[in-house]
Amino acid sequence: MQALRKAIQEQGKGIGTDIVEVGSFLNHRLDTGLMFQMGEHIAKAFAEDQPSLILTVEASGIALALATAHCMKDIPVLFAKKTPAKTLNEAMLTTQVKSYTHGTAYTMRCAKALMKPNDHVLIVDDFLADGEAVRGMMDLVKQAGATLAGVAIAIEKGFQPGGRNLREQGVKLASLSIVTAIKDGHIQLLDD
Amino acid sequence: MQALRKAIQEQGKGIGTDIVEVGSFLNHRLDTGLMFQMGEHIAKAFAEDQPSLILTVEASGIALALATAHCMKDIPVLFAKKTPAKTLNEAMLTTQVKSYTHGTAYTMRCAKALMKPNDHVLIVDDFLADGEAVRGMMDLVKQAGATLAGVAIAIEKGFQPGGRNLREQGVKLASLSIVTAIKDGHIQLLDD
Repeated sequence: MQALRKAIQEQGKGIGTDIVEVGSFLNHRLDTGLMFQMGEHIAKAFAEDQPSLILTVEASGIALALATAHCMKDIPVLFAKKTPAKTLNEAMLTTQVKSYTHGTAYTMRCAKALMKPNDHVLIVDDFLADGEAVRGMMDLVKQAGATLAGVAIAIEKGFQPGGRNLREQGVKLASLSIVTAIKDGHIQLLDD
Repeated sequence: MQALRKAIQEQGKGIGTDIVEVGSFLNHRLDTGLMFQMGEHIAKAFAEDQPSLILTVEASGIALALATAHCMKDIPVLFAKKTPAKTLNEAMLTTQVKSYTHGTAYTMRCAKALMKPNDHVLIVDDFLADGEAVRGMMDLVKQAGATLAGVAIAIEKGFQPGGRNLREQGVKLASLSIVTAIKDGHIQLLDD
């Protein structure tokens, strides 16, 4: 997606060989206009699949998930949680996920009552790298007895295995941009 | 705001004397249509203040902040973080905040470069109770040398001091709903 590629090239920072720093528009400060352009793009890509629910995980997936949901006639969003809160005392679906960004593992969870067996679920997230977060969300969808419409991602790290694994599984995957390498601070992107 | 009050009355659960459980539409599953109705309401309330930036804190404030930003001609959103990530190695503004919900304290932070002295900032969050999170965000605004347009909240707990303290300080506060008491599982709301 051209507007996103432009933002990555102009504002993104490549750090080391695997970090794409996009805090100025995607996952800390949010470029609201770009967020809704991306939502529109994803909504078109999955229009025929008619998802009934968008699933994401806190925190940085929420904005793109909500923008996409608004572009899909305001279907609901469910965001999985990483931390238990006092108010989450109902029945939960849980799955274990490793986070390479934070160097930790966490329990991803969502309330059982909020994803139904008849839901057709579109997973949306900001990044796809090793694919652990998406794998966790797919596990929650499976546990709920719901079906998967597909996966939409703002930035896929093409040099990590998450995207390839999903395509090999036959999952419909829309990556709005694919980073092929990070070298000397420069972020190399695949053309559309 | 009537649509929000209706959702609280129909779907909210009062737990004990101080927990308002609204995970089915506000801070776990998101009622996307309602989120944008609330955003429209806040945008009208602060139209004359012409904020240049919306500040919120991860995770549950992000959705309402983005919806509001979209209703204010796509001004940017900045969400403060509660956890350090590998990619946050630039200069940060930080402030200490107690979380009554989680029974912990945390360091709220945002990148110094992403809030400018000429920003006029509208703070948006899902809940206002003791006011700690808003106090933390106001401190970040002050540290950035920016100015405060006001504070917009989906649910104010009127029986806790956060709202009263802000009004006494002369802060422009728009609470879309005010809970006056929680008793026997019932949530009592102030009329508009």
